[in-house]
Amino acid sequence: MSEATRVAVIGIGAGDPGHVTVAAVEALNRADVFFFLDKADAAIELSELRQAILDVHVPGKGYRLVRTPDPERLRTEAGYPEAVEDWRKRRADVCERMIAENLRPGETGAFLVWGDPSLYDSIISVVDDIRARGALAFEVEVLPGISSVSALAARCRTTLNQVGGAVQVTTGRRLAQGWPEGVDDVVVMLDARDAYLELADDPDLHIHWGAYVGTRDEVVISGPLAEVAERIRDTRAAARREKGWIMDTYLLRRARG
Amino acid sequence: MSEATRVAVIGIGAGDPGHVTVAAVEALNRADVFFFLDKADAAIELSELRQAILDVHVPGKGYRLVRTPDPERLRTEAGYPEAVEDWRKRRADVCERMIAENLRPGETGAFLVWGDPSLYDSIISVVDDIRARGALAFEVEVLPGISSVSALAARCRTTLNQVGGAVQVTTGRRLAQGWPEGVDDVVVMLDARDAYLELADDPDLHIHWGAYVGTRDEVVISGPLAEVAERIRDTRAAARREKGWIMDTYLLRRARG
Repeated sequence: MSEATRVAVIGIGAGDPGHVTVAAVEALNRADVFFFLDKADAAIELSELRQAILDVHVPGKGYRLVRTPDPERLRTEAGYPEAVEDWRKRRADVCERMIAENLRPGETGAFLVWGDPSLYDSIISVVDDIRARGALAFEVEVLPGISSVSALAARCRTTLNQVGGAVQVTTGRRLAQGWPEGVDDVVVMLDARDAYLELADDPDLHIHWGAYVGTRDEVVISGPLAEVAERIRDTRAAARREKGWIMDTYLLRRARG
Repeated sequence: MSEATRVAVIGIGAGDPGHVTVAAVEALNRADVFFFLDKADAAIELSELRQAILDVHVPGKGYRLVRTPDPERLRTEAGYPEAVEDWRKRRADVCERMIAENLRPGETGAFLVWGDPSLYDSIISVVDDIRARGALAFEVEVLPGISSVSALAARCRTTLNQVGGAVQVTTGRRLAQGWPEGVDDVVVMLDARDAYLELADDPDLHIHWGAYVGTRDEVVISGPLAEVAERIRDTRAAARREKGWIMDTYLLRRARG
């Protein structure tokens, strides 16, 4: 009896090889082939980080590696959801081709996802789309990972919610439209515009900001937003200039009355 | 030179021993003593689950184990935050005593936290409170864990957010006050009242509900809320009756127009 053909979506944490789960390590070692989508702006270093995680956890190296450029996303303002949908379709095309050409029946292919596949990552949708097209048949397995949010909170030894309160996880684009209703704690991901700066005159806000958390380049700044906002802006601009890309997250906390 | 005395707060995931991270496994093996707070209603089985995780990951058993009953929390409606604050103080008293009586200078003591210490868990605050009191001196280390939210999303092979959207993590108590503003996706934890039932006439809502995710008792129900709400209510009532406690989480998703 032949084994099922499988695609595994493996959350590998936000950069610290120690943040990979035991189940993810086992899944990494079961994979016959890894599919890497290389982002144009951060290709080399992100590939090195990914490779470092494989080197630590799959020392036997008994795998094949297939790499292809990640289709570029148009960063237009108005058409954001549509642009993402189009990007997702092009990624599905690319991924379908990678799977079709490289995954033999009964094998397991794996996509490595930074952080946790459930937050602001489209690989699960891409894999669903490919299955829905019907040309390829495979089973899907998702392994949760430590998100950059959890890594940042642990690093700052803080919680995301206040007692009995809610926390909203959102994007820089949405935060720029105003503080979300009904929450005192907001986690912001994908902020390409320093949206926190617009809130820097609010004396009740505290921020925990972290970039490359868990890697050797980790930078964390915590404090009253009004006091540290400009330092965060300068630090992230310098880091992005130096490395060519940035992976950062922050928690904004409004003190309760 | 003597080593620092340390307290580690270790996220151990939501029940699946495979969801423990490699860094958490290392931290478990560095600990000299584990502090267990036994909840009255779920003491035996949660202790067994915790012990199972230690048995898998610390086979050498070179540790001491200190157990004490977790102070009970008064579940009053109006005084919720105050009741939690009082509970937190009594937990700090109990934990301070456990540490003072059992952790020798230079040793590492550890608290195991279900899921991720950053979400709806008070141990980080308790440890901060103990340090602020000033009677005991120790360093604190927090290790992130896979939350029941991430475990549920992975199990359902879904994301928490829709494209470019926000997600709110909240409590059953807050959801009972109405659907949160500005989000299409809501994760609910600590729902002792089946708050989702009040939304069951909304035809645009989809639910992913899971209890004991990652354990042998795992139950997951997904579907249009209107169709599955009563089945979830009956399933969780039966599970809670049978086991005496329940650990469940759900994601409510509003389809976009």
